[in-house]
Amino acid sequence: MEESLKKRIQFAAEIDRLKQVLRVNLLQDGSRRENTAEHSWHMSVLTIMFADQAEEKIDLLRAVKMALLHDVVEVDAGDTYAFDKDANNDKWEREKKAADRLFGLLPKSLGDEFHNLWMDYEELSSPEARFIAAMDRLSPLLQHLGNQGKTWKEKKMTRSRLMTRIGDLARYCPKLKPFVEESLDTAVANGWLLPD
Amino acid sequence: MEESLKKRIQFAAEIDRLKQVLRVNLLQDGSRRENTAEHSWHMSVLTIMFADQAEEKIDLLRAVKMALLHDVVEVDAGDTYAFDKDANNDKWEREKKAADRLFGLLPKSLGDEFHNLWMDYEELSSPEARFIAAMDRLSPLLQHLGNQGKTWKEKKMTRSRLMTRIGDLARYCPKLKPFVEESLDTAVANGWLLPD
Repeated sequence: MEESLKKRIQFAAEIDRLKQVLRVNLLQDGSRRENTAEHSWHMSVLTIMFADQAEEKIDLLRAVKMALLHDVVEVDAGDTYAFDKDANNDKWEREKKAADRLFGLLPKSLGDEFHNLWMDYEELSSPEARFIAAMDRLSPLLQHLGNQGKTWKEKKMTRSRLMTRIGDLARYCPKLKPFVEESLDTAVANGWLLPD
Repeated sequence: MEESLKKRIQFAAEIDRLKQVLRVNLLQDGSRRENTAEHSWHMSVLTIMFADQAEEKIDLLRAVKMALLHDVVEVDAGDTYAFDKDANNDKWEREKKAADRLFGLLPKSLGDEFHNLWMDYEELSSPEARFIAAMDRLSPLLQHLGNQGKTWKEKKMTRSRLMTRIGDLARYCPKLKPFVEESLDTAVANGWLLPD
């Protein structure tokens, strides 16, 4: 078998472990914690569903590729909860190392393409990256609403703290801003989220 | 909020349940059964990794969309194991009904697009569908090899029975045929798969 195929098969086999990386977020019905592989699927579907909502012009194929790969480094680096300050201190170093190793398994051109997509997302340096960041906020928002703020309550989340995190959604998909505002108002009214 | 956005948000929330649909296949390390959402993620990544291996010319964006959505009807219809004859008798009816309901939640143009992608895959009626079918065989093959044929042994799977199922992989990505043949030979030699 061609060397290029062997390398790709090795990478494909390694990333299966993303299914075992658990995030803090619960599924929509609150039954268990979500893993990063299924999160990446959901976010990728949102990407193709809401593409026309992107504030900037995007290349949709590039955006979907980025969504599929945006968290793949967690195979080595694990998931880092957005609100965990300590864990976020060395997140960049851990993920950079993981990216070098994982994408380094691939044939050079494909590895470079994937590495660039990942880096671009980390730095939000393209319209695709900014749109994907919005979808990366929308997916958990739907989950938290679905399970009546189970994780928000556990973490004593406030409206403004959450808003700093999911602000990207309203920023990069402005037509979704009313949905974000209404959702957070409902969450506060129902006691799922603390008022400020 | 616009009606079109409301509808999309409802669909996005409903399909979260795909994370709870369990397949017969185990993860690569054999630790638990795989769910359809994470399977769809893995298969979509394979789609972007092996696109140059498709025997026919494909539209990659269309192929990735199809991969992301190919099993979404299982939200209602559940997973049907490829080798379960009885369950396969009414699979089409169950999935057709699920597709009508689920895609019917969406704004008409998006719902029609998704319905067509799903139907196309079911009927293997485009180069994208045939390529995706190959990726849908490659992903579990890697899993079964990784967990040393745990499911194959449990199901007393034979080489030829498996070959009828994963033949699409060699057929639509002929350069991967040597990998398929070698993998099955190894599996038989190791007692993971029964010889014929």
